[in-house]
Formats: sequence, C-alpha cells, structure tokens
Amino acid sequence: MTAFRPRDPASIGVAVLGAGRMGRTHLANLSAIPNANVLVVADADPDAAEAGRELVRAPRAVVEPREAIDEPGVEAVVIVTPTSTHAGLIDAALRAGKAVWTEKPIAQDLAETARIVDLWRETGLPVQVGFMRRFDPGYERAKRLIDQGELGRIEQFHAVGRDTYPPPVEFLRTAGGSFLDMTVHDLDLARFLVGEVEEIHAWAAVLFDERFAEADDFDTSVAMLRFRNGALGVIETSRHSAWGYDIRTEVAGALAKVVVDGGQKTPATIMRRFGFEGDLYETFPDRFEVAYRRELEAFFADLAAGRTPSPGPDDALETLRLAVAATRSWREGRPIRIDEVTA
Amino acid sequence: MTAFRPRDPASIGVAVLGAGRMGRTHLANLSAIPNANVLVVADADPDAAEAGRELVRAPRAVVEPREAIDEPGVEAVVIVTPTSTHAGLIDAALRAGKAVWTEKPIAQDLAETARIVDLWRETGLPVQVGFMRRFDPGYERAKRLIDQGELGRIEQFHAVGRDTYPPPVEFLRTAGGSFLDMTVHDLDLARFLVGEVEEIHAWAAVLFDERFAEADDFDTSVAMLRFRNGALGVIETSRHSAWGYDIRTEVAGALAKVVVDGGQKTPATIMRRFGFEGDLYETFPDRFEVAYRRELEAFFADLAAGRTPSPGPDDALETLRLAVAATRSWREGRPIRIDEVTA
Amino acid sequence: MTAFRPRDPASIGVAVLGAGRMGRTHLANLSAIPNANVLVVADADPDAAEAGRELVRAPRAVVEPREAIDEPGVEAVVIVTPTSTHAGLIDAALRAGKAVWTEKPIAQDLAETARIVDLWRETGLPVQVGFMRRFDPGYERAKRLIDQGELGRIEQFHAVGRDTYPPPVEFLRTAGGSFLDMTVHDLDLARFLVGEVEEIHAWAAVLFDERFAEADDFDTSVAMLRFRNGALGVIETSRHSAWGYDIRTEVAGALAKVVVDGGQKTPATIMRRFGFEGDLYETFPDRFEVAYRRELEAFFADLAAGRTPSPGPDDALETLRLAVAATRSWREGRPIRIDEVTA
Amino acid sequence: MTAFRPRDPASIGVAVLGAGRMGRTHLANLSAIPNANVLVVADADPDAAEAGRELVRAPRAVVEPREAIDEPGVEAVVIVTPTSTHAGLIDAALRAGKAVWTEKPIAQDLAETARIVDLWRETGLPVQVGFMRRFDPGYERAKRLIDQGELGRIEQFHAVGRDTYPPPVEFLRTAGGSFLDMTVHDLDLARFLVGEVEEIHAWAAVLFDERFAEADDFDTSVAMLRFRNGALGVIETSRHSAWGYDIRTEVAGALAKVVVDGGQKTPATIMRRFGFEGDLYETFPDRFEVAYRRELEAFFADLAAGRTPSPGPDDALETLRLAVAATRSWREGRPIRIDEVTA
Repeated sequence: MTAFRPRDPASIGVAVLGAGRMGRTHLANLSAIPNANVLVVADADPDAAEAGRELVRAPRAVVEPREAIDEPGVEAVVIVTPTSTHAGLIDAALRAGKAVWTEKPIAQDLAETARIVDLWRETGLPVQVGFMRRFDPGYERAKRLIDQGELGRIEQFHAVGRDTYPPPVEFLRTAGGSFLDMTVHDLDLARFLVGEVEEIHAWAAVLFDERFAEADDFDTSVAMLRFRNGALGVIETSRHSAWGYDIRTEVAGALAKVVVDGGQKTPATIMRRFGFEGDLYETFPDRFEVAYRRELEAFFADLAAGRTPSPGPDDALETLRLAVAATRSWREGRPIRIDEVTA
Repeated sequence: MTAFRPRDPASIGVAVLGAGRMGRTHLANLSAIPNANVLVVADADPDAAEAGRELVRAPRAVVEPREAIDEPGVEAVVIVTPTSTHAGLIDAALRAGKAVWTEKPIAQDLAETARIVDLWRETGLPVQVGFMRRFDPGYERAKRLIDQGELGRIEQFHAVGRDTYPPPVEFLRTAGGSFLDMTVHDLDLARFLVGEVEEIHAWAAVLFDERFAEADDFDTSVAMLRFRNGALGVIETSRHSAWGYDIRTEVAGALAKVVVDGGQKTPATIMRRFGFEGDLYETFPDRFEVAYRRELEAFFADLAAGRTPSPGPDDALETLRLAVAATRSWREGRPIRIDEVTA
Repeated sequence: MTAFRPRDPASIGVAVLGAGRMGRTHLANLSAIPNANVLVVADADPDAAEAGRELVRAPRAVVEPREAIDEPGVEAVVIVTPTSTHAGLIDAALRAGKAVWTEKPIAQDLAETARIVDLWRETGLPVQVGFMRRFDPGYERAKRLIDQGELGRIEQFHAVGRDTYPPPVEFLRTAGGSFLDMTVHDLDLARFLVGEVEEIHAWAAVLFDERFAEADDFDTSVAMLRFRNGALGVIETSRHSAWGYDIRTEVAGALAKVVVDGGQKTPATIMRRFGFEGDLYETFPDRFEVAYRRELEAFFADLAAGRTPSPGPDDALETLRLAVAATRSWREGRPIRIDEVTA
Repeated sequence: MTAFRPRDPASIGVAVLGAGRMGRTHLANLSAIPNANVLVVADADPDAAEAGRELVRAPRAVVEPREAIDEPGVEAVVIVTPTSTHAGLIDAALRAGKAVWTEKPIAQDLAETARIVDLWRETGLPVQVGFMRRFDPGYERAKRLIDQGELGRIEQFHAVGRDTYPPPVEFLRTAGGSFLDMTVHDLDLARFLVGEVEEIHAWAAVLFDERFAEADDFDTSVAMLRFRNGALGVIETSRHSAWGYDIRTEVAGALAKVVVDGGQKTPATIMRRFGFEGDLYETFPDRFEVAYRRELEAFFADLAAGRTPSPGPDDALETLRLAVAATRSWREGRPIRIDEVTA
C-alpha cells in the first residue's frame, strides 16, 4: 500500500515529460489507458511538446518540465526525458507529492540513485522504473512458472541481448558504457527471474566499431554471474545484429527450463527451394510493443488500486549495482563481488 | 478516388453504431487513430451507449442509430450493430452522404446485399466491410508475396477454420448457417489470395452439438473449390476446438508456398520430461487483435487520402455468393457452379 | 498367430526380388536386421543382381525371381520388382509356402488384389505390404495417441501429399493414375488413423505438366472423404513441389488434434537480414528413411515371434478400393460410395 | 595423404576393440559400411565379445585386444574400450602399422596425449578421434556456412550441454572431471567452428548431486572463452536435465548467426487445451545417431581414398588442453591463458 491516493481512480491527471521518439510511444499508449488523463506535455523543443499534446488531445504543452509537474490536477508524472535529467525530475515530482513513472535508469551513478531510493522511502509515493521486459507476456509467463515452482531449484541462467543498430556517437559519450546502457536489461531479468547476484566477471572487446573504443567502451561482451542461491549464469551482449533485435533468455531448473525468445514476427512462412523462411523482429519497439503498453497499464492500475508498483527504485539501484560491477570487472580484469560495489 | 472529401483529413467526425463487445473493441481501436474523432456513440441499450461514450470521451451517447448518423459533424459511420440491421443502417448512412465502415456481412441475403452494392456505386461513397483477416500482417505478407509472383502460378489452396467455443443457441437461429457465419471468412481469403471461384462442393455433418441440427445447421464441414484460374482448393470448418482458435491457410504455387498460421501466442516455451510446450491463441479477438486495429487505421487513412477503401461491398457480395453456393451444395448434395447463384 | 514358423527365429533365410533403386535401399536395411539372412538376390538385370548381392554379401545372385523363391533355405521373400509383377510373385511365393514382404501395390486391379487376399487367407502365411508411412515415428505416435483416446471422437482429417519431381513419362503410362500411385498413401493413412471410408468425391486438373493429360491422368487433385464413423476429411495431392517432399497430415478430434509434418530436416538454422531459414526434406527416401528401415524390422520381428504382420493384403485391398473410387469419382464427376466399388 | 594404403579399398579388414554399449552401436554402424569388413571383435568379457561378433557375423571373437590388433588381415582398429586403455591400444595399433579410429579421449593426460600425437606424426598413419558431433548434419552445415563466409567475422559463441542422467559414481572417479568428460565436447565445437582459444575462465558448483563433491568434481559449470581471433564465447554445462539431452550451439558473426539445436525428435505435434506439445531427444545416442554412423563412414571413405581423416590426435590434444585449462581455472579461481597449459 502506498501513501498515494488519486482523487478519482477512474481519471488520474498526468504530466508527460519528454515527447521525443520514446515519449510519443508512451503518449500513444497512455491515450488507450482509460484512467490516465494527460493534462500537459512538456518538451524542451516547443514543436515536439505541441505535437505530443495533439497526439493525446491534452489541454496544454509546455517547455519547462517543472511547470508541467506543478500543473493543477497533475497527480502522476511520466518521465521520458534524457537520462541525465531523470533523477532531478523524480526528485522534483516526489517533493511535489506526485506519483512517478520513469524511464530507466534513475541515474548512471550509484550515489544519486541511492539518494532517490531514500527519498522514495521517505515519501512513500509510488515510483515505477521502465524495465519494460518484465511486462512482456513471455517474461511474465516465465516468472509465473518459476514462482509456482514448476522449474524446481534454479540452476542456470543464460541471456543474450543484441541491438540491431549501434547507437549514434554522441549517445555513446553519455550512456555510461554498454553494461549500463544495454546489459542492464539482462541483469534486471537475472534478478527478476533468478534472484540476487553475488559475484560477476565480465570480458569485453571492440570487434566491429572503433567508435566504441574511442568512447572508452566496447561493442561485444560476455559475463558470468554467480547468484546468491548458488545458480550460475552467463550473459552475452552485442551492439549490432545483422538479423534483427536478438533477445533470448533461458532459465534452467532441476525440473524444467523455460525459454523466452521473440521468434517469428509475422505469422507467414514461405517455403521454396527445399527450405522455409520467416521473419524476425527488427527492433526493440517492435519486439516489446506490448510490453511498453502493459508497463503503463500496470502502473495506472496500481495507482487506482493503491498498490505499490514494481519494479521500483530499489530494483533500479540493485540492477545498476550489477552493471557497475560488470563495468569494474571488465576494467580491472577480475571477478567483482557485488557487496564490494557500494555507492 | 471516391466522391468523399473529409472537411479536415486530420480530424474526421465519427458516429459509432453499436457498443456491445465488438463495439467496445472498435471504440478502443478508434481512440488510438489520430484522425478519427468519435462524436457520438449509439446503442439500443442506453447504459452500453454511455459506457462506449466514456471509453473514447466522446461528446454524446444516443439510443437511436439514425440520430447518430445525423449528428452534426459526423462524416463517417462505423457500424457494429446486430447483423440484421447492417443493410438498413448502411443505406441510411449512404443516403445521408456519409462514409461507412461496417462489420460483415452487409446482409445474409444476396438481393439485399446487391441492392447496397448498387447504392454504393451510385453514391460513390467509401464503404469498407470488416473482413479483418485481410489486415493481419500474416495474410498481408502472403498477399504481397503472391502479387509479386513469388509463388508462380497458384495451384492449390487450403484453409482450416475452427472456432473455440460454439455460439449460443439464440445466435444460431439468426446467423444464416455456418457457411455464412464462419466459412465465409475462409471463402473471403480464397478470393483475396487466389481469385474468383467457379464451382464449390460442400459436405457437412453434426458431430458434437445437436443444437446445430435443431437449427437446421451443422457443426463440421468440408468443401472443395475450383477456381476460375484452374487452382483447386479445400476448406475445413469446425464450430469448436479444444485447443483454441485454429486458423491456418496455405497457398501453394508452382514456385513456392506460403502458410499463414497463428502459431505460438506467448514467446515462452517450457521444456520438461522429454518434451516442449507452448501456448496457442484461445480466441479470435486475441489472434486478430492487430488486424482489428489495422482495418480501421486503413479505413481512416484511405478517407484522409481520398482513396477507395477495400474490401468493399462488391467483395462482400461475391464472398456471400460463395457461402450461399456452399450452403446450397450441402442441402442439394451436389456441386454448385457459382454463376448459378444469382440474387 | 500365423501358419508360419521360421526354422530359426534368429536367422531367417531371405530372397530379395528386385535390386533397383528401392531394392538397394531395402537390401541396405536388411543388412542391419540381425535375423534377416539374405541368401539370394534376383534382378532381371544380372549386373544389378550382382551389385545387390555384394551389398549384403549374399551367397547368390540370379536373374529369375522364381529361382530365388525356390532357393534352398529361403523362408521369406522380399518383393521390390516392378508393380505389374507383384501379384504373380506373391502368388508364387505363397504357393511355395514362403512369408512375403512386398512393395505396394499388390496389383492395380481390384479383382487381382482380391484374389491374392483370398490366397493369403487360405495359406495363413504372413504377408506385409509396404505402406512405410505407418512405421514413421510421427505416424506411429499419432496412431498411438488416437488409439489411447487422447483425441476423443475423431471429427476431421486433412492430408496433403506433394512429390518433389514428376515421374518419367514411361512410368506414367503404367502407374494406374495418380490416385492409385500417389494419393493411395494418404488414403492408407486415412484408414490407418481414422477408419473406413463411406464416400469419396475427387476433383483433379492438369495445371503444370501436359504429359499427365496425354497419359489420361492429372497432376493436381483434391478430394473429400466421408468416414463411416461420421468424420469428414480432405486430401490434396500434387505431382510436383518446388520446396521439397511435402507431406502433412492432421487429425482433429473432440479433445485434441495431432499433426504429423516432416518439418526441418537439418538441425541448423541460419538468421540474417531480419529473418530465419532452415531446410526441408527434398525427397521421400530422405523423409521416410527411418520408416523404410522400421517396416522391415517389424516384419522380421513379427516372423520371429509368430505374429501376423500388418498392414496386410486386406489393408492393401481396402485402400486400393478408395483409390479406385477416387479415380471413378473424378472420371464420372460425382461422389462415389465405396460399397459401389466391387472387384 | 597418409602413409596408409589398404590392400583393397573396397574391403578393409577391421578389428573392433570393446563390445560394450557404445561398442555395439559402432558394430551395428560398421555392418552397414560396405568397405568395412570386421574380422575380429575383442572384449575382456568373452560373452560380450561373442555377442559383438554375432552382431556383425565376424569370423572371430577374442578377449585380448592385442591379439585382435595382430589378427591376420586387420588393417584398421576401432577402439571403444574404457578410457584408461585408449592410449596404450592406439600405441600398439600404430606400432603394428594399423589405421586407428578411437573413441575420445586419447588420454586424460596432456603428456600421454602429446606422446600419441608424436607417434602419429612419426608413423604417418591415419588416426581419427571420436568427436562425433562434427559429423552431425547440423554441425556440418554450420561449419560449411562459416567456412563459406556466410557469417562474416565471427564475434560470439555460445554452447550449452546438458546430459540427461548423471553418470554412476564409479565412473565419476575415473572420468577426469566434468570439464574433461563433458564440456570437452563443447570445447571441441568451439575450436571446430570458431578457432583456437587464447584464454578461459570457468566457474562451477555442486547444485544437485553431492556425489560430484565427493569425487572432487561439480555438476554445473559456466565458462568464458576468449578466442585468438578476438571472438568471445560462453559455455554452460550440466550433468542432469529433466527435459532430455540438451545441446544447443550458436555462432554469431557480423553478417549472420547459425544455431544448431536438436529440436523436436518425433514429427508429431499434439495440440490441446490452448497449447501445443512435441517431444525432445532423451539421450545422446538418439540425438547423435546419425553422427555416430557418419563419423565411421567418413573414416572408411578417407582410408579408401588415401585422405587423412579428421579430427586427428592434434585436435584431441588441443581440445584436451582447453579442458585442462578450464579445470585449472576452476580450481585456482582465475582466468587461465591456454599457452600456460603445457604437457
């Protein structure tokens, strides 16, 4: 139970901060959520703010996010701004008594993230962080099977994550490195599906794109995880994939294993010349279209019901700790115990 | 090019007639279409009308559909009322100069359907009929491959359609028989993917639900089709399926074949005791969720661009003719040539 | 229990008649069956006979099949000669008191087949006919599931059969037509999996190869079946397939359905350019490699155990009756009741 | 080209050493290879030797392997005896001038293996080691695609290997540990598909079977590999699997990836209660049935053609070096460079 009570659970006033590409995705999804009533859209670019406003027929568009937070009637703030602004805006929204849904990460920095966790605990307000994969029907089903004991004791975890297209160079400089920017999704799945991690060892290399080397980053990595419950895991990450967005996760237990894999995208298979062919998801917005919708539906359903939404800032902090540990392991060339990684 | 020009292609006034289960599905989909501006929702049940209105935050709810058609600002009418009312409402909407999107069928009767086709031709107004499968990404891809000549000359067509749950008995009495109510979807695919049909022979039986016999109908059928281009086809229909909504369509040509099959629903596979398991679509709203969305998006995109939407009343008429031919073949125990079947 | 008792169940003397392509396949399979001891190989072509002999290191090769039947020590005769010789050789072998395994068909003629059935009944000797698909692990599993009641009452049957390459023209003239030569395999599966057939209606066409028209045959067909137990079925046949040997069979019941489909041949899948690709079986010897091995294993296991092997001449007769009915239906343009089709 | 010339390439005299479970599998496979002429079967257990002899109708059975090696007419020796005897028997066979096919490993010890490599180089005789997976059609296709450049530069490798049933305890004590006994197969694939390895880091745990702890071994492991060409890899190993023999290998390159995965075993899929089910391979003899056949076929084809068979003792030595490195990494808790691992 949270400290938050909407005035009308059937119509919660919302400010959306950020109306770029992902912002528009979230706006379109909000328009189909009956109890999310977008009152104001903010973006530093006034044209983007106005375009976002029109998309949901909201009453107002502004350039200043804090003005949107304070807009009368706003009870919940949805944050889709650049990463470096997340923590400051969460802070402002919580201090203004608003519920918060924010894109991940809270911050690239453990201390700053921990500060938000503390504020979240103090205020008792609902905060959900955008680890959308947890809301994919495939991952939800995997989680349910695991929680029901269908897999027995978990023994092994394997995740592969490959983005189709490497990011632009200006993004690379501010993304905090590929463990924080990309592997973090698989680390979150590791915690979600298996449990807390005790130790991590990561290797990385620049194999196809020298821009990563220039940004003191890498384009390809592998990591081993030792979980507190004894299970062992491996994660593979690549920043390009000629065959599309390639996400596959496998959890193996004593009784069964479950595999989550996007598989064929379009239900049409062609057969010719002694073979068959089908298509794959090209990008993450395609693959996780449903998950993006469902994470916001869950948030507003939780607000209406007075439930604490999840994953919260504590999850974001623990997952960030793993990404920082992986980065440190790579840089120092040795396994890192997670309890070494303190803010 | 149609005779219809919206006042503002970016905001087309819409009346939605019918706010039952499918009506609410279409209303939810309309709310995410930027240039569809629902002004009024009509339903004989005032509570349903009001609930529909709230879903899209429309200004008005009424019980009388003709009142909705005449509502100021309404340029397009979306018809989701009971089947027996379709033709009358299309007629009224066209005579009022409105564009029309209607659930299939126009009518269960060839003469009545032909009358609407004539009116549609006279008015030159856009009318789209709800054969949603044509908008499923799988069927769209199949159609594109065929049109591009990837399959070469088409030689064979196979369709199976099984509904999960038999309909309620009151529905059976008014549905016009299972060829008109269910097989019609596969007959539409036959025309869409292969071309016009010359002859049909159908067999049917009551194998599991005596209510169908009481309604002078059947629960299981097979049919053979001979297409004008020489291709041969078979269609299987069943009114129940213990394993979920079972739709599979295969088109075989001289160079390749294409198979459209819903396949696995949730991207999570469990492996245990020397086997693997995945889930299937339970019902058609699940399987064709995307198609329901896309058929309305296409309609409003066509209205905005001044294009004639498709499939139109002429498609509905020709497909109905096949369903009537199948019914007659079953009753008379002989193959029926389609050109025998006149209104 | 049969009238046949091998002198030594662990070493049964065998004559193989026919050492062409299929003959060599059967010889290779026989060489791995511990209790099949090939004593003589016969082929009209002495080089083929000698090559066959060497393949299994048999003591003797002959050109005259009846000489092989009478070879001392021969207790079982395996017949892989041209179709027109089957009945005569089965007759000779049975009259010599030998067990018989024969490629299908016994004869293309109902009267001749019925005559062999009578002789088989009189002699009480074991005769197995080469409907190899029954020994494919996929079809065996389907049969077992059906017999165990897992599917409930059977309601529908669908089979598609497409050969990769059309046969040479000299073969066409003697093959008895495509229903007898190709569809017969699917008709056998219909009987094996669902039960006896009451009525059949078939349509056919020449769509890609005029040689079939010249041979008074067709290259493409469809058929509807009505089973005695009420189930309805459809069969599709084509004499070419650009994507490989295409065999798929589906049995749908009240509780479940089972699909037998060769699927991917080689367990390697390649992913590139937003799609995946795998290979399919090119030809029937590939797809049914295991079935060809297992049908002979079963025969010799039955001989050793004194069991009656299956499918027997009675199965061959009933399946032939269906193929004749399909042919007659196609020629006469009407449904044919199976009890109309008498020798 | 090897120093070995069979007297008659169409009939090579063979001694088979070892007629236990795997020995009988190899004997059955040899019986279908036309130019492999088994002259003698040896097993310490005279009943096993005799049963093996009967299986292939060989002239002689003996208990002393060296007697079989020296049997007149024997040109090739197939070694399927317990692991500890391999090196000694290879040594004896080579010194007797025979070609050798041997089950892996040559020895569990680097020095002993290196000694055999030296002897092999000196004698110039053909020696093939039983890494059967290289002959699986799936792995062959993967290798061919990689060699043809279809994947572009290789960037990542992932292998999982899970045996269905843990071995008996007496086996554990002599198997050299799970990296040498099981992971070695995936290490061989890593070298076969990607290339030589530079560094390895392995973690392991006892999660389900304390007998492994008692044997100073583990039941579950993960490892990271850094290849000389820069690619990164991960390997997962488990000594049990409730869902069957679980082998999956993935090689990802700049242009494409290839996945080798056994997949569905029997081509029959059942659908019921909104789901589908198929079966998986229970054990490795099932999954690699074809590979076991083809590795011996390749050996005898190479002998007949005067080609050097592969994989040879040098492959066995390099792969063993990786398994020893993994073991050492696990024991010492640090990454091991492969060039540290000398005999």
